Amino acid sequence: MEKILRINMSGENGPVGKEEPVGAYAGLGGRAMTSAIIAKEVPPQCHPLGEDNKLVIAPGLLCGTPANMTGRVSIGFKSPLTGGIKESNAGGPAGPILARLGYAALVIEGKPKDGAFYKIIIKKDGFEILPENELKMTGNYAVIDKIKGGFSPEAAFISIGQAGEMKLGAASIACTDNEQRPTRHAGRGGGGAVMGAKGIKVIALERAGTSSIIAKDPSRFGDANKAFAEGLKKHDVSGQALPAFGSSVLTNVINEAGAYPTHNFQFGQFAGAEKISGETIAELEYERGGEPEHGCHSDCIIRCSGIYHDKDHNYLTKQPEYETVWAHGGNCGIDDIDAIAMMDRLDDDFGFDTIEMGAAIGVAMEAGLAEFGDAEAAIRFIKEAGEGTPLGRIIGSGAATVGRAFGVERVPVVKGQSMPAYDPRAVQGVGVTYATSPMGADHTAGYSVTSNILDVGGTVNPLKPEGQVELSRNLQIATAAVDSTGMCLFTAFAILDQPETFQALIDMINAQYGLNLTADDVTALGKSILKNEVGFNKAAGFSPEMDRLPDFFKKEIFPPHNVRFEVTDSELDSVFNW
Amino acid sequence: MEKILRINMSGENGPVGKEEPVGAYAGLGGRAMTSAIIAKEVPPQCHPLGEDNKLVIAPGLLCGTPANMTGRVSIGFKSPLTGGIKESNAGGPAGPILARLGYAALVIEGKPKDGAFYKIIIKKDGFEILPENELKMTGNYAVIDKIKGGFSPEAAFISIGQAGEMKLGAASIACTDNEQRPTRHAGRGGGGAVMGAKGIKVIALERAGTSSIIAKDPSRFGDANKAFAEGLKKHDVSGQALPAFGSSVLTNVINEAGAYPTHNFQFGQFAGAEKISGETIAELEYERGGEPEHGCHSDCIIRCSGIYHDKDHNYLTKQPEYETVWAHGGNCGIDDIDAIAMMDRLDDDFGFDTIEMGAAIGVAMEAGLAEFGDAEAAIRFIKEAGEGTPLGRIIGSGAATVGRAFGVERVPVVKGQSMPAYDPRAVQGVGVTYATSPMGADHTAGYSVTSNILDVGGTVNPLKPEGQVELSRNLQIATAAVDSTGMCLFTAFAILDQPETFQALIDMINAQYGLNLTADDVTALGKSILKNEVGFNKAAGFSPEMDRLPDFFKKEIFPPHNVRFEVTDSELDSVFNW
Repeated sequence: MEKILRINMSGENGPVGKEEPVGAYAGLGGRAMTSAIIAKEVPPQCHPLGEDNKLVIAPGLLCGTPANMTGRVSIGFKSPLTGGIKESNAGGPAGPILARLGYAALVIEGKPKDGAFYKIIIKKDGFEILPENELKMTGNYAVIDKIKGGFSPEAAFISIGQAGEMKLGAASIACTDNEQRPTRHAGRGGGGAVMGAKGIKVIALERAGTSSIIAKDPSRFGDANKAFAEGLKKHDVSGQALPAFGSSVLTNVINEAGAYPTHNFQFGQFAGAEKISGETIAELEYERGGEPEHGCHSDCIIRCSGIYHDKDHNYLTKQPEYETVWAHGGNCGIDDIDAIAMMDRLDDDFGFDTIEMGAAIGVAMEAGLAEFGDAEAAIRFIKEAGEGTPLGRIIGSGAATVGRAFGVERVPVVKGQSMPAYDPRAVQGVGVTYATSPMGADHTAGYSVTSNILDVGGTVNPLKPEGQVELSRNLQIATAAVDSTGMCLFTAFAILDQPETFQALIDMINAQYGLNLTADDVTALGKSILKNEVGFNKAAGFSPEMDRLPDFFKKEIFPPHNVRFEVTDSELDSVFNW
Repeated sequence: MEKILRINMSGENGPVGKEEPVGAYAGLGGRAMTSAIIAKEVPPQCHPLGEDNKLVIAPGLLCGTPANMTGRVSIGFKSPLTGGIKESNAGGPAGPILARLGYAALVIEGKPKDGAFYKIIIKKDGFEILPENELKMTGNYAVIDKIKGGFSPEAAFISIGQAGEMKLGAASIACTDNEQRPTRHAGRGGGGAVMGAKGIKVIALERAGTSSIIAKDPSRFGDANKAFAEGLKKHDVSGQALPAFGSSVLTNVINEAGAYPTHNFQFGQFAGAEKISGETIAELEYERGGEPEHGCHSDCIIRCSGIYHDKDHNYLTKQPEYETVWAHGGNCGIDDIDAIAMMDRLDDDFGFDTIEMGAAIGVAMEAGLAEFGDAEAAIRFIKEAGEGTPLGRIIGSGAATVGRAFGVERVPVVKGQSMPAYDPRAVQGVGVTYATSPMGADHTAGYSVTSNILDVGGTVNPLKPEGQVELSRNLQIATAAVDSTGMCLFTAFAILDQPETFQALIDMINAQYGLNLTADDVTALGKSILKNEVGFNKAAGFSPEMDRLPDFFKKEIFPPHNVRFEVTDSELDSVFNW
């Protein structure tokens, strides 16, 4: 990871790539890298779809090493959805392979003059940038099927579907999983649209011929890695709940807590929750020959992903994540898990963020375009989005655009990005994260569900404002740091609860790079990332008064707890005052 | 003008109106009144379509008096298009009648619980609020035709068409002209959507039984009014150019200056300009029995409006304004004046802002939805907008939404509102106004075209940044004050050039109210209005970094002068530092 590959798409005679030393960005990985490059090199006022925006793809610091759980690749850009800086990360082998290929970052700049599409092929021996217009307006599954034959079965691919080519705000960037299926998405913020604007259809990363990155102190690294694995195994969440039921283990938990946003954030409990729960999904997967316990990359030991088969026992999609099931399920009043799995498949294929799409459809249902619970209509909306009909373009542009086009007042977005699967009134800590994260409404940016609901990392009453700012602040700082390591965020449960597991992570980084970092250094790293991001957003036009939830969360009483969001504006303004 | 009529649409048993003394708002008129009420009473973070927003309709200070030119009514609200405060004003008799009825403001609050529509009838003897669901999804022309029979021929009506009912961002509020046609629109910022959200289809203002408001010093008032009229008559612009050719007298002028935004702001000159010029329009009006010189209300002496007949010599629409002709004409590459007049008619009938619609169609053409110059397609787009098809809702939501839905980079908006008919690179002073006005991109907010192009109020090189900030600042201050008097902004040419005409305006206000205001007081009024507006926007989430033009105006060279927008960010930040 000592070089950066820069590809300028604006070249007179087509794209031009060049390798350069990592230079001033040395020592950064994942989100720390993407946010540093975006903050330093992208003019904050530029148009997200213009030539001045950059798409930065960076493996985490421990990617490509033998460390367990380091499958995350960060993708950074100025977001077409929020207008601010964005880091969105995905699992699968792309991050590790990019690291093994020696790249600390891939930076795609400019914009092709001819509106053509290209593919980027990176192998051990070098890179190629080739025209790729035959795959135009092809879905991610077909893209990978058509291209993978030229690569080893361990290669990874990063691609966009039709949504990215149409530059829609909900367009995701797909990364392949261990089976070379395009199921792991850097979903949020419209990265697919930026990749589409850059004219990149697919990036192929060949693993063959690469080798694992050896630590400066292999013995210490091995010990720490082992301790880290033991920590993950012994924690209830990462050792039992996630492997057994995947992230959808949360469906019943959040629903029982009365925090499950139902019918576009009208109620906190969904009558059909059991029918779409992780337990139900795992059972179906057993029955139909799918796979409930499965890793999205080879170094995973939590194995929360899975494989979902349809009624005929054929592969349909990966095990849909909790937020996906919520977005297309409870949020839209849909309790048909096969329909939800079909929507997951369509989203993955067209290249859409499942959260943004579910939220957009929820707002469309509130506008009366379909009844809540109408799964056929929801599937039709996604198909229209992928086909680019006018209605599809409205929905594919995200919840805020649906709200505008149909005059809807109750639109659950912050900074233009839709909220995920936790109501901020019943999980006030996550509300603080939604309001203040430089990413827009994003649960992963500071997952206060931990102490609010799961009793992980302490306990804070989810229905009260007290303690939520501190909780969200600390989690936002920690998450920014974790997002830089390449570690899956699901390691955080054990890290938060078990000091020795946190120490093992630090030990691994130290052993890998020959450093002597302490917990304070990790905190400092998280703070510096957030500072970069908040600074970029300010220069892009964001104000503290944009760090707010939509008005209706402060006015409407949310059943069953009958609570409003009660964290005050001045408390929200204090999140980044550390 | 000693009372305010407040109508609360949220009442359990339907809307409830009550009259109250003007109280703390005494002495304010027009924009000073609307912005004061919005800034004080509307929570800046509320949803523009929610119950906390208010729609404030206020006649200017001199409305209802015998003063010439005082036909303007101001309509204020939090804008669904910009998210900020908005004042949009319109001509016609509505303002004067509201004043003669004794109202300093009509404030519509809340939101009907049942989603029903209502009409408000205000006569000398009192007001009524009645259900009006028969006119649902009816165009403005039919609304007025169906309702006017119950009123005198001098009554005025304020209404919304289908666009407002659908709560689209480009929805206008129509005010009737002297012939009771819905041709004078408070167009900008989506006021129609706010009126739609309040459930108001039409407001009828009966003039019968009211009388002119007598000044405290009638003799001094009469003298000042006479001097004011003489000043307007002797100035070239208000005395000759506007009466002869209407505002479209500017088409040839701006085109020759190379500042006429053509094909979505790609070029500064339009080959078809002559075919859609004010001169051509006036000639056609003579030929077809229309009327090229006509007042939009009875106290007008400039008489820049007109009546446009179709090829069969039947009434089609009012004489389309310069900005309308530009928006649907040169901006879309269309040089067929009958097609443009048809679009004007459709916009007026559905209740759309012609500027926002033309800009939206220009962006749609840039996206490839139709060729520049395709008048049939442009007409179809407007019809779809009025019908509420998905494509129509995209276009009817304005240029920014079209840009989002179709992934267009070149979108000429500031704060979500589209730019009007003067390119900010070739009229850099108006660029400063577009960037900094609390209204979003708006030429009327500080019409620097005066000194930049017309040599009115001094001369400033339009292609250079020097002097533009001071020019725009002074004009924004003066305009805010003029917008409070009820005076048509077209009086400003004479006011800027002739100190005695400015003095006559001040004398009229002093004589009317028994005051001793000076020019400094007028400046102070303008500043206080802007301060209210900028303060509201800040609390709503606006930042100084939002006071910027889109990036492409700073990067693309604009022919024929081959200039970029060169006013620096720090200069823009100084506009409101006085």
